[in-house]
Amino acid sequence: MNTTPPIEYEDASPEVRAIFDDIRQTRNTDYINNIWKCLAHHPAVLRRTWEGVKEVMGPGVLDPVTKEMIYLAISITNNCGYCVASHGAAAQKAGMSDDMFGEIMSIVGMANETNRLVSGYRVPIDEIFQQLRD
Amino acid sequence: MNTTPPIEYEDASPEVRAIFDDIRQTRNTDYINNIWKCLAHHPAVLRRTWEGVKEVMGPGVLDPVTKEMIYLAISITNNCGYCVASHGAAAQKAGMSDDMFGEIMSIVGMANETNRLVSGYRVPIDEIFQQLRD
Amino acid sequence: MNTTPPIEYEDASPEVRAIFDDIRQTRNTDYINNIWKCLAHHPAVLRRTWEGVKEVMGPGVLDPVTKEMIYLAISITNNCGYCVASHGAAAQKAGMSDDMFGEIMSIVGMANETNRLVSGYRVPIDEIFQQLRD
Amino acid sequence: MNTTPPIEYEDASPEVRAIFDDIRQTRNTDYINNIWKCLAHHPAVLRRTWEGVKEVMGPGVLDPVTKEMIYLAISITNNCGYCVASHGAAAQKAGMSDDMFGEIMSIVGMANETNRLVSGYRVPIDEIFQQLRD
Amino acid sequence: MNTTPPIEYEDASPEVRAIFDDIRQTRNTDYINNIWKCLAHHPAVLRRTWEGVKEVMGPGVLDPVTKEMIYLAISITNNCGYCVASHGAAAQKAGMSDDMFGEIMSIVGMANETNRLVSGYRVPIDEIFQQLRD
Amino acid sequence: MNTTPPIEYEDASPEVRAIFDDIRQTRNTDYINNIWKCLAHHPAVLRRTWEGVKEVMGPGVLDPVTKEMIYLAISITNNCGYCVASHGAAAQKAGMSDDMFGEIMSIVGMANETNRLVSGYRVPIDEIFQQLRD
Repeated sequence: MNTTPPIEYEDASPEVRAIFDDIRQTRNTDYINNIWKCLAHHPAVLRRTWEGVKEVMGPGVLDPVTKEMIYLAISITNNCGYCVASHGAAAQKAGMSDDMFGEIMSIVGMANETNRLVSGYRVPIDEIFQQLRD
Repeated sequence: MNTTPPIEYEDASPEVRAIFDDIRQTRNTDYINNIWKCLAHHPAVLRRTWEGVKEVMGPGVLDPVTKEMIYLAISITNNCGYCVASHGAAAQKAGMSDDMFGEIMSIVGMANETNRLVSGYRVPIDEIFQQLRD
Repeated sequence: MNTTPPIEYEDASPEVRAIFDDIRQTRNTDYINNIWKCLAHHPAVLRRTWEGVKEVMGPGVLDPVTKEMIYLAISITNNCGYCVASHGAAAQKAGMSDDMFGEIMSIVGMANETNRLVSGYRVPIDEIFQQLRD
Repeated sequence: MNTTPPIEYEDASPEVRAIFDDIRQTRNTDYINNIWKCLAHHPAVLRRTWEGVKEVMGPGVLDPVTKEMIYLAISITNNCGYCVASHGAAAQKAGMSDDMFGEIMSIVGMANETNRLVSGYRVPIDEIFQQLRD
Repeated sequence: MNTTPPIEYEDASPEVRAIFDDIRQTRNTDYINNIWKCLAHHPAVLRRTWEGVKEVMGPGVLDPVTKEMIYLAISITNNCGYCVASHGAAAQKAGMSDDMFGEIMSIVGMANETNRLVSGYRVPIDEIFQQLRD
Repeated sequence: MNTTPPIEYEDASPEVRAIFDDIRQTRNTDYINNIWKCLAHHPAVLRRTWEGVKEVMGPGVLDPVTKEMIYLAISITNNCGYCVASHGAAAQKAGMSDDMFGEIMSIVGMANETNRLVSGYRVPIDEIFQQLRD
C-alpha cells in the first residue's frame, strides 16, 4: 500500500485516544479523518497539528465557511489531492454552495496566472502599496 | 533597472488607453497599478488579463472582501511580493481588518503545513470525501 | 469517485453545448477532453478558460509545437499529472518527437536545479541583465 | 550584503579558472555571469552545474531560442528573479522578439491557471491520454 | 516601506514581551529576529509559531545542525529569501561548515531536478517502495 | 497506462545496460528503481542524472542518512509521490528511524509554515543575517 497505514481508535495509545476524543467532541462527529489517523504514528506531531488546526479554524473574526474556502484555495494552489478533497468537503459542510466553489476556482485560476505575470514582467511595487502598513 | 518599465497613460497606444480608461472607471479611481502599465507592453495580454480580473473580481455570490482575501492567501502561498502588496492593499480597502489579516495568516501557515504533512505521510483519501461530488 | 464527474455533451446545457461545439470545430475533432467536461459545472469558468486557451494557443509568432512544449514544461514543473498527460499528447500531435521530449526534460531538470541554486546562494543580479529591457 | 559574494577570475583557484575559461570559450564572450562566480565557492557544484548546462543548452534537436524560452518559462513559474533576468537576456540574444516574449507570458499565465483548475476540479485523466506513451 | 514594521521590545504589549523574553532565554541571546517582531502584530500567531519552532527545533533524536540544515534546504526550495538568510545563519552557528553547505546545495539542486523528471516521465512507484511502511 | 513504460535490463541498449550495471555495483544490489528504467528512454538524460546522483549522494562531509533525509524533506515539500516513496525507503535503509522521520515531518511542516508567514508579513531581512557570508 502506497500510504502510511492509518491507526484506528481501538489500536491507538491512550495519548492518541485522548486527542481523537477531542477531535470527535470539537467537531461533534464520531468520524476521524485519515490525516489524524496517519499523524497518530507520531503523537507529538498529531498533538501539535490538531491543537493548531483547532485554534486556527475555531471561532474568530472570520466565519467558518470563509476560513474553509481560504484553506481550500491554498490546498488547490499547492496541488494537495487529499487536502482538496477533505477541505472541499469541509467547506461544503460549512456552507459553500456550488456557485461559491465556481467563484473560488475563478479566483484561484486568476491569482495563479497574475502571480506569474508579475514574475515574468518583473513588475516594480507601486509606492502607494509600500506605505500602507506603516 | 531590474523591471519592465511601466508605460504611462500619455505614452500608451489608443488600444491601451481604452483599457486604462475602463480600469479607472470600473475601480472608480484615477490610479493605475504598475501591473497594468507593465502588461501594456503586450496589449493582448493586458486586455485578456484585465477582462479576466474584472469579471472574476466583480459582483458575484462571494462578497468583495472575501474574494480579495482568497486572492491574497494564494499570492502569499506563491511568494509573490508584488501581489502580496497590491492585494493586501485591495483587501484592506475592501474591508479586511488587521484582526482578519491575522486570521488569514494563521490559515495560510496551517494550510501550507498540513499540505506537506499529507505529502510526507502519503495519507490515503477517505472514502467519505471521494463520494461528495458525485 | 475522487474527481469531479465530467458532464457529457448530451447532459449539457445549451450554453455549455455551444462551447463544446466551438472546441470541436476549433480543434477539428469530436473528442472533448475531461477538463472541459469538468469545467462545465461552472459555465462561466468553462467559457473564460476556453476563450483564453483558444486565443493563447491559436495562431501567433510562435509555432504550435513550441507553444505546446512550453505549456508541457510548466505543467511538469507544477507537477500537474493531468496536464502532463494532456499537453504531452498535444505536443506529440503538434510534432514533438521523442528526442525533442528528451531535450525538454533535460531543460526542465536543469532549470529547476539552477532556480534553487540561485535561491540558496542568493546570487545578485548582474548589472548587465538589469538594463536590457530599458 | 544579502548575497554570496561573487568570486572574480583573478581571485579564483586554478580549478575554477579552468571552468571560467571554458564558459568564456563556449559562449564566445569574456563575460562571466554572477551565478558562476557564486557557485565558485564550491568548485564541485560549479563544475557539475556548468557541465550540465553546457550539455543541455548545447546543440541538439531543439534550436537555441526554443531552449532558452523553455528555460525562461520555467524560471518565471518558479518565481526566480535572477533566472528571469539572465535567461530573459539569453533568450533575447538567441532571437526571442518582444512579440514572442508576449506569447510566452500568455502561455505561462494560462498554464499556471489551468494547472490549478485541474487540481481544484480533480479532473480524471482521459483514457486516450493514458495510452499514448505505451 | 515594503514590509511589516517590526515591533520593538519597548513598544510591545506585556503578552508579546513575555514571548520575547522566552525567545531570549531559550536561545541564550538578547537578539530577537525580525520575524518575531513582525509576528508581534498578532500575538496569537506569534505565540503559536514560537511554541511550534521551540518544540520542533528543540532537543530530540536529530542533532541541532541536522535540523537547521533540513530547515534551510526547504527554505531554499521554497525560494524564501528571509528564511535562507536566517536559517543559513542558524545552521552556520549550529556547526554547518562551508563544505557542508556545498553538499546541501548539491542535494537541493539534484532533488529539485529529479522531482521534476519523475513528474515529466510519470514514473510508476515501485512495488518494493509501496510495501515498506506496512 | 498513465506512465512511461520502464525499460527492463534485457530490453535495454548496451549504453543503458552499462549505466544499469554501474547503478547495481555502486548500490550493491541487483534492483534497479523505476526512475532509472524510465529515464532509459533517453540515455543522455539517464547518464547525466545518474552521474549527478552518484556524485552528490556519494561519500562526503555529510553522512548518508543526513543526505537522504534532506532529499526526502525537499521531495515532501515538492509533493513528489514517487520521490517520497523512494527516498523514504532509502533514508530508512541508511538508518532513519521512525522517530527521526517524525522529527523530519515536524520540521517540514514548520518550515513550510514559516516560509509563508515571512511572505505574508513581508519580513525585512535583519542586518545581522546579511553580513554573515561576507
